[in-house]
Amino acid sequence: MHYEEIIQSTIKKNNSKIVLLVLDGLGDIRSPKFYSKTPLEYAHTPNLDQLAKKSVLGRMYPILPGITPGSGPGHLGLFGYDPLKNVIGRGVLEAIGIDFSLQAHDVAARCNFATINEESIITDRRAGRISTEITQKLCEILQTIKEIDGVEIIIKSGKGHRFVTIFRSKQKEIGSLINDTDPLVEGKAPLLANGKNTPSQFLAQVINKFMKKGYELLKEQFPANAFLLRGIASKPKIPSISEKYLLESAAIASYPMYRGIASLLGMTLLPAPDSIEGLFQTYVNYKQKYDFFFIHVKGTDQAGEDGDFDSKVKCIETVDKSLPILLDHMPDVLAITGDHSTPCVMRSHSFHPMPVLLHSDFSGIDDVDRFHENACNLGGLGFFESRYLMGLLLANAKRLDKFGA
Amino acid sequence: MHYEEIIQSTIKKNNSKIVLLVLDGLGDIRSPKFYSKTPLEYAHTPNLDQLAKKSVLGRMYPILPGITPGSGPGHLGLFGYDPLKNVIGRGVLEAIGIDFSLQAHDVAARCNFATINEESIITDRRAGRISTEITQKLCEILQTIKEIDGVEIIIKSGKGHRFVTIFRSKQKEIGSLINDTDPLVEGKAPLLANGKNTPSQFLAQVINKFMKKGYELLKEQFPANAFLLRGIASKPKIPSISEKYLLESAAIASYPMYRGIASLLGMTLLPAPDSIEGLFQTYVNYKQKYDFFFIHVKGTDQAGEDGDFDSKVKCIETVDKSLPILLDHMPDVLAITGDHSTPCVMRSHSFHPMPVLLHSDFSGIDDVDRFHENACNLGGLGFFESRYLMGLLLANAKRLDKFGA
Repeated sequence: MHYEEIIQSTIKKNNSKIVLLVLDGLGDIRSPKFYSKTPLEYAHTPNLDQLAKKSVLGRMYPILPGITPGSGPGHLGLFGYDPLKNVIGRGVLEAIGIDFSLQAHDVAARCNFATINEESIITDRRAGRISTEITQKLCEILQTIKEIDGVEIIIKSGKGHRFVTIFRSKQKEIGSLINDTDPLVEGKAPLLANGKNTPSQFLAQVINKFMKKGYELLKEQFPANAFLLRGIASKPKIPSISEKYLLESAAIASYPMYRGIASLLGMTLLPAPDSIEGLFQTYVNYKQKYDFFFIHVKGTDQAGEDGDFDSKVKCIETVDKSLPILLDHMPDVLAITGDHSTPCVMRSHSFHPMPVLLHSDFSGIDDVDRFHENACNLGGLGFFESRYLMGLLLANAKRLDKFGA
Repeated sequence: MHYEEIIQSTIKKNNSKIVLLVLDGLGDIRSPKFYSKTPLEYAHTPNLDQLAKKSVLGRMYPILPGITPGSGPGHLGLFGYDPLKNVIGRGVLEAIGIDFSLQAHDVAARCNFATINEESIITDRRAGRISTEITQKLCEILQTIKEIDGVEIIIKSGKGHRFVTIFRSKQKEIGSLINDTDPLVEGKAPLLANGKNTPSQFLAQVINKFMKKGYELLKEQFPANAFLLRGIASKPKIPSISEKYLLESAAIASYPMYRGIASLLGMTLLPAPDSIEGLFQTYVNYKQKYDFFFIHVKGTDQAGEDGDFDSKVKCIETVDKSLPILLDHMPDVLAITGDHSTPCVMRSHSFHPMPVLLHSDFSGIDDVDRFHENACNLGGLGFFESRYLMGLLLANAKRLDKFGA
């Protein structure tokens, strides 16, 4: 029996409300060459401090020590889906990232426009990094292909030279055990798609026809006279939050990637205004209707990626200032954390454990009186993997029965 | 190679003495609405404090974060048996809980008296919650069935409408992959027993005959004119402490459940007087005869279940006051902890990590100078799962060789 099975076998319903507030990329580090405090340490956060005094704190590994997660695995872990067992394909993440609503058997691929010469040899895998506007126009041209062998072709432009293709089949099963057609180097021809089982072989043939037809249509569009497919993936079969935890769940998130992941897990997408106040207000407005709220704040990650210490501090302070809106309608269980760290000095996601705060009538209270990385080192939750957080939230909500007699 | 295999491959004997003192349900939490200190924090414990100053401390998850264990999994973890892999069936725990000594191939079932109508439909699954006395009388009636198809039937009454049936076969193998005969709702007939393999099919037929004969005998005993079986389980095949660790082990525990678990693991049951002093004195009396002593104190859990903060404090203070009896005959390795937490504010087992204290010449000494939950957050043992405790005890006793060259 493993962890998720214990949860499954002990889960029960009650009327409790749970809020998981995720400040994306929240974790940070002190750096000898940069700042001697982390943004959380530096920020003026009277409301978070007050809450910390009544809560239990700790640090969470997004995956395992040393592993830096993308947003997919980072969030899957937070929702208690072992990110090592539940892998969401790149094509699906890309489709989600542009706010495309995938249906049950859809297969999605990341695509980029490329340049080939007369011998069909790739001379530029990114077609000279054409602009988003040009890509949009080219996608319209490609979209004149609507269907191949009964498989619907849906094309959505992305940033720069990137776009996403979704394959949707109503009649015949399609599979996604298909190689990339991008050889990943220049000087070679695009690869033919090959499927590893019957439904994948069928879709591979459709993809080969799609490339042939598409290249024909793009002939005059040099340098973008070709395109390549990568990360071909089916919508994963993952149990929903409602199946897994008997929770009616809702997401308050404004960015497509996070809305997409929430929607994959069966959460209802609630209105998500741009302001942090607005996010908390949405929770208040819908508090009675759902059991579990995932509130996502993007600013902390953005600031980290930009290496902008001041912006990260400011975003944290805005959250702190708006927090009373949420605290005035205190859920039974509240957790505040990140999906991973994004240290300003690194300007990227990182492997550092996140600070985490957990408050409920039964969370216990430790001696930590501020919410920041190093304070959390001494907390009553210790260090743990984020895939256990959801179990802690459910346990605090008294939604888990005893295991064994 | 997994953890238990490493222990197996490095274990050796020596003359060291190990004591594991378990204060049942010891762990607790500070609660904003209840007490601002935990019972361990609040208690006056000069001897424990003194010991903490010379020891290494930490916190132990009974299973994994968020999981609340029953006494079975809680104790299995303490003895280094992975509670996710070694599951003791409910019927067996029930038999253990009434102090019944199971033999190697016994199968046990939890039973309850019930009421059926003339169409054999269950109208009350608990027969109007008849008294323990009536249940005892009814069990005597049922026990006139001594044997069916060569399988001995042993009936032991429990509390209220509950009893345990043990099936013992000397000739033919019996299995326990058998469904409950209790449909778990009223308005349905009792279910027939069905076995999933040959030895289980054989016992299922015996059970069906037992029910038929039994109902016949109970006919005139309305409302208790029927009974239902649940949690049908075989005595688990678990290696004994002696096989696993080469330890001569003894249990000093007065409650049936804990004596039962100890006995399942092959420990010798020593006299266990009601007083805590008495428990420690038993250890002193038998110190020369055994390598490993499991001393079980029930009062802390009882107080927690009753929500009785003062009692829990008092029980801890009594342990502290009696501790010199044990300390004057200091074992080579001493650990003090719980099998799970039972916070007074929750009046039930909980998922919170237990405080743990470990003392030996080689335990190391950290900066923690008191034995309570939040102090232990900062200890030199960190946070770990209780299934690793036994390895730590053996290592401190120098009973484990180096792993690998």
